[in-house]
Amino acid sequence: MLHEDRLFSTDPAVRGIARKLYDEVKDLPIISPHGHVEAQMFAENKPFPDPAQLLIVPDHYIFRLLYSQGISLESLGVRPVDGSWFETDSRKIWQIFCEKFYLFAGTPTGVWLMHEFSELFGIQEKLSDADAQEIYNRIQEKLNLPDFLPRAMFDRFNLEVLSTTDGASDDLKYHRKIRESGWKGNVVPCFRPDDVTNLQNPNWKQNIVRLGELTGITIQSFRDFVSALEKRRKEFIEMGAVATDHGVELPWTHELSPNEADRIFQDALKGKVTDESAKLFTAHMLMEMARMSVEDGMVMQIHPGCYRDHNREVFRRFGQNKGADIPLQTEFTKSLSELLNKFGNRRDFTVVVFTLDETTYSRELATLAGHYPAMKIGPTWWFFDSINGMTRHREAILETASIYNTVGFIDDTRAFPSIPARHDVSRRIDCNYLAGLFARHIIDMESAEIMAREMAYGLSKRTYCLKK
Amino acid sequence: MLHEDRLFSTDPAVRGIARKLYDEVKDLPIISPHGHVEAQMFAENKPFPDPAQLLIVPDHYIFRLLYSQGISLESLGVRPVDGSWFETDSRKIWQIFCEKFYLFAGTPTGVWLMHEFSELFGIQEKLSDADAQEIYNRIQEKLNLPDFLPRAMFDRFNLEVLSTTDGASDDLKYHRKIRESGWKGNVVPCFRPDDVTNLQNPNWKQNIVRLGELTGITIQSFRDFVSALEKRRKEFIEMGAVATDHGVELPWTHELSPNEADRIFQDALKGKVTDESAKLFTAHMLMEMARMSVEDGMVMQIHPGCYRDHNREVFRRFGQNKGADIPLQTEFTKSLSELLNKFGNRRDFTVVVFTLDETTYSRELATLAGHYPAMKIGPTWWFFDSINGMTRHREAILETASIYNTVGFIDDTRAFPSIPARHDVSRRIDCNYLAGLFARHIIDMESAEIMAREMAYGLSKRTYCLKK
Amino acid sequence: MLHEDRLFSTDPAVRGIARKLYDEVKDLPIISPHGHVEAQMFAENKPFPDPAQLLIVPDHYIFRLLYSQGISLESLGVRPVDGSWFETDSRKIWQIFCEKFYLFAGTPTGVWLMHEFSELFGIQEKLSDADAQEIYNRIQEKLNLPDFLPRAMFDRFNLEVLSTTDGASDDLKYHRKIRESGWKGNVVPCFRPDDVTNLQNPNWKQNIVRLGELTGITIQSFRDFVSALEKRRKEFIEMGAVATDHGVELPWTHELSPNEADRIFQDALKGKVTDESAKLFTAHMLMEMARMSVEDGMVMQIHPGCYRDHNREVFRRFGQNKGADIPLQTEFTKSLSELLNKFGNRRDFTVVVFTLDETTYSRELATLAGHYPAMKIGPTWWFFDSINGMTRHREAILETASIYNTVGFIDDTRAFPSIPARHDVSRRIDCNYLAGLFARHIIDMESAEIMAREMAYGLSKRTYCLKK
Repeated sequence: MLHEDRLFSTDPAVRGIARKLYDEVKDLPIISPHGHVEAQMFAENKPFPDPAQLLIVPDHYIFRLLYSQGISLESLGVRPVDGSWFETDSRKIWQIFCEKFYLFAGTPTGVWLMHEFSELFGIQEKLSDADAQEIYNRIQEKLNLPDFLPRAMFDRFNLEVLSTTDGASDDLKYHRKIRESGWKGNVVPCFRPDDVTNLQNPNWKQNIVRLGELTGITIQSFRDFVSALEKRRKEFIEMGAVATDHGVELPWTHELSPNEADRIFQDALKGKVTDESAKLFTAHMLMEMARMSVEDGMVMQIHPGCYRDHNREVFRRFGQNKGADIPLQTEFTKSLSELLNKFGNRRDFTVVVFTLDETTYSRELATLAGHYPAMKIGPTWWFFDSINGMTRHREAILETASIYNTVGFIDDTRAFPSIPARHDVSRRIDCNYLAGLFARHIIDMESAEIMAREMAYGLSKRTYCLKK
Repeated sequence: MLHEDRLFSTDPAVRGIARKLYDEVKDLPIISPHGHVEAQMFAENKPFPDPAQLLIVPDHYIFRLLYSQGISLESLGVRPVDGSWFETDSRKIWQIFCEKFYLFAGTPTGVWLMHEFSELFGIQEKLSDADAQEIYNRIQEKLNLPDFLPRAMFDRFNLEVLSTTDGASDDLKYHRKIRESGWKGNVVPCFRPDDVTNLQNPNWKQNIVRLGELTGITIQSFRDFVSALEKRRKEFIEMGAVATDHGVELPWTHELSPNEADRIFQDALKGKVTDESAKLFTAHMLMEMARMSVEDGMVMQIHPGCYRDHNREVFRRFGQNKGADIPLQTEFTKSLSELLNKFGNRRDFTVVVFTLDETTYSRELATLAGHYPAMKIGPTWWFFDSINGMTRHREAILETASIYNTVGFIDDTRAFPSIPARHDVSRRIDCNYLAGLFARHIIDMESAEIMAREMAYGLSKRTYCLKK
Repeated sequence: MLHEDRLFSTDPAVRGIARKLYDEVKDLPIISPHGHVEAQMFAENKPFPDPAQLLIVPDHYIFRLLYSQGISLESLGVRPVDGSWFETDSRKIWQIFCEKFYLFAGTPTGVWLMHEFSELFGIQEKLSDADAQEIYNRIQEKLNLPDFLPRAMFDRFNLEVLSTTDGASDDLKYHRKIRESGWKGNVVPCFRPDDVTNLQNPNWKQNIVRLGELTGITIQSFRDFVSALEKRRKEFIEMGAVATDHGVELPWTHELSPNEADRIFQDALKGKVTDESAKLFTAHMLMEMARMSVEDGMVMQIHPGCYRDHNREVFRRFGQNKGADIPLQTEFTKSLSELLNKFGNRRDFTVVVFTLDETTYSRELATLAGHYPAMKIGPTWWFFDSINGMTRHREAILETASIYNTVGFIDDTRAFPSIPARHDVSRRIDCNYLAGLFARHIIDMESAEIMAREMAYGLSKRTYCLKK
């Protein structure tokens, strides 16, 4: 089922080199400093319940495509928030999935799943309607084994570090539990304060209260708010955090005066928030977060340009992260101007910028990162974490920014068992890209080998891990 | 002149598979549910007058490129609206075309024409200055044969269905004549009410009058207008229509209150139209049209993002569709939000979205269609109906939306004899794309074969034809 | 070090044809009608001082990437405007460069440099830390030879024409000196009046004074200003100029009434300039410049969409052109509407449009140039003057506009010794592109050969040189 030359060019002159480069990097440890796997999984280390609950129900890549073809989310086991019916029979969910598996042909999800089935569960045949329950049984059998507990899988995956993503008002209790357990797996949090920096978050007020409780600071002013954030950042760092993350709709950065910031904050405490005040506050908070990163050394990550919960009915019935987040055109040159002018010339600060707007790769991101010492370009994100997506990313960025102003590959997944598959795809695409450069006499073999290692491991290790 | 492996990858590992897949789909019937061929042609079934009038004078792909190189439209037989001179000697037009045929090397027009010359007229040599008149004679001879009458060509092309495009104020008399003739060719209309939904159409008022006459409804209010449109849609459906089409500059959708809509409509009847009122009205009419599609089952098509008649002198002298329509940046995520929120979760509604802004393929269209059950992505349109254009379309869309949220290939042409050439190009490109996936071990042969058939025939057949 | 098949496809079926086509065009003369090499270099014909001053210090492609990796501009020999320290020891600069040469692997700068080292200086080995000083010595030795004087290199490069770029207030004394010297090298100026058409240029007022002095016209009104520009254009034409150039942020064109234009101009003379008045003035000046080009025959070039001096600290410390110019999203369809409507249908006018926004290639530029007789598309500019950049440019543009609405390849460089390398890359990419079309049976060999010659030489020669 899995061919050893998969994803490589079919041209023998390229394929042979790609294979050679890949052989040297395929077993390098995995650095995963930004993702959405839950710490609870490793704190509790309980067996995964069954194939559907492991592979389908939590994966919006899978259920969004099934939903687009007319299959209800309820029938796929997605729980409505109002407590109404949803499928709880995992075998039925699995059956639908197997019947519709043909939809994933040629998609990255299809590629990852085939890797997982084959490498993780030893299933070499193609999923089908007829064999659905038998394959279910075989996976279930494995999931019952100690080797398939979360921590065992973590070790088998050769994960050097795995970061979760946590709000400013998250108590990190599971991270603490992992630390206290004596287990050596390096699971760290990432500080993502959108829950308190986005004034339009419906739970903003209670998140502020929670932030106050966690820090012991009564938050009555913008100044208090900043102090609380600084304190929480310290706690995150103590739990191993190396980075922050900011999921803003616009990457616009703009510094307010202390009075302006405080006025907007006070208004928000009173429930007075406008689109304009929320936008200004977010722009200002990006500046504040950059300042704090300069001070405490955490790498700053920005994930902008996503219209969240585009489908309001799906949001109302099922909540967030249900496959209805849609990219928007995004502008960086003017938007990041204030942040880069204030902090971009520093060598003690790193801001990693991601995008869902591929037009910005060559036009804006590569040219900004190819100049400012502080800026690096994130890997392909979300829909673009795919074979064509990665290829376009490399082709558009590397000529201007060089690989050295990127952070190599890091995944960004909620689907824990897909992590090795995702890194494997990326390592193959990178080796194939470098093999193409070598075969067209653009780089030599020594460079290709160094670059392959950097893209698979070195760049992300240096960007994220050695800063602490 | 036509190589059997044309357009396929030069890599033997891919080419062999592409050829095999292509052999299985090349003779499938052609589904053409959206185009601009005139029904009159089949109603009257008169011989095409001569090579220039068949191939050059009506084809803005051809005369726009000649015009860009300094050749006047008059000399190419394009008739000025003011009755001033234009070339009527088709041999002279043909001579210019042959002298300048080198301009089309590497363009899709060049590829289509070579296919037409070879397959339709048996001309295997390259067009040249010296042979121009002799080739003219050979084509003319064929055009005089019964086999080259429109209906005979329709049958030879293996057209399962051909849709024309007709305004809301079009009387469909030629469609009626075809039905009454007893000829079995399936020529159907498509309901394109831009003539009455665009308040800035210079003939808007008289189109409304005409719409009233055709429906027997005195149109004095927005309510009357809606009733008239509903009635006309019924008539279109009776003549076989399966789809509507909407050529809007912006794809913005927005529902007005009945009072607002009526106020704008009443103002327009009095000749009071502003850019803002026209924009609001179009946005509202897209919502109305979606509602009607839910009710009567016609597939809704949206072709946005074109700046019509950019060259005002050419428009003034020659009228519309003279090669001066230029694409605009287009936004879908926010623009389609209202329409998709109201109707996008339905399984009894289909909206097919086209674009001239390729940046929206992966960023907006694939992500929206990869979630909303009602939305499908149209094929490459206009300038992008080409080898590179189609390749980019597949590469950008299919990883996120899968082929199953597209409608396969449908052409959109005024040039009747180019229809088989266009579908042949698309089938070659798709088979080549799938062959690449197979050769890189991303999909298996069974999937490739199913997908090739779907892209050539199954997807468009299901989307358009089986809804009635 | 330089492989004879470099940059060609690795597919033997394509590579063999590419090589054959390339062999026929590689030795054609170089047309360079737009660049930033200084006339002074050829007027004085002094030896280049040393390897660092020739290759590194003046090349923002090189020092921007080194800067992005944390190396200070001072240490690379870039002179601060305030007179503070900078490295003047060229051997130290060279050493840093050689240590960091690995950063350029896979970038166009890397490709150009390897070409220069090998072809110009006979250095076949890879640059390294260890050999840095020895290679410095070998280049220095060459630079001391008469064969490496600027004029000798000009001749060796087979430059048919080289254009500098000069402001409206530039006195052209070095051009005069070249003419008077009797040397036959064809070095001509290009008229770039941004210094007086951009009201927000900090030296605008003194540039106007200087323009008055040079023309003997006391500039007190917009009318005077226009007369002075017309007079200067004549002088440029007398010195061989064939083109103008306009580096505007927005390509928006809009004609003001004479009163409006004069009001804005008078206000500017009094120091009153707003963002809005500057924008209107630039839009109007593009219209004026087009009118003058119709009258005097100079080709008009527009280079829009660049945010200049994004890094204000670098600008303050080092001045302009220090690698911190960043592209912006750009719109052409509406922006060029007035200019093309007024002048675009003429055959006695040529406007060449460049872009840093690749999304406009297929959407806007190819469709506009594929219709308007006056408009042509410029080659890849700046960051896109690279292997992938050129490939994307050809793939996006040529199907719609054909090669005949482009101007072939022209470089745009400050780095004199890189000119042959840049044209060599372009000739290779073009031949490879055409070989791909031939190998996929899209064009025949006769067409491929003609097109290769046109793209390397014929198109730029006709567009720029034969107009005078």
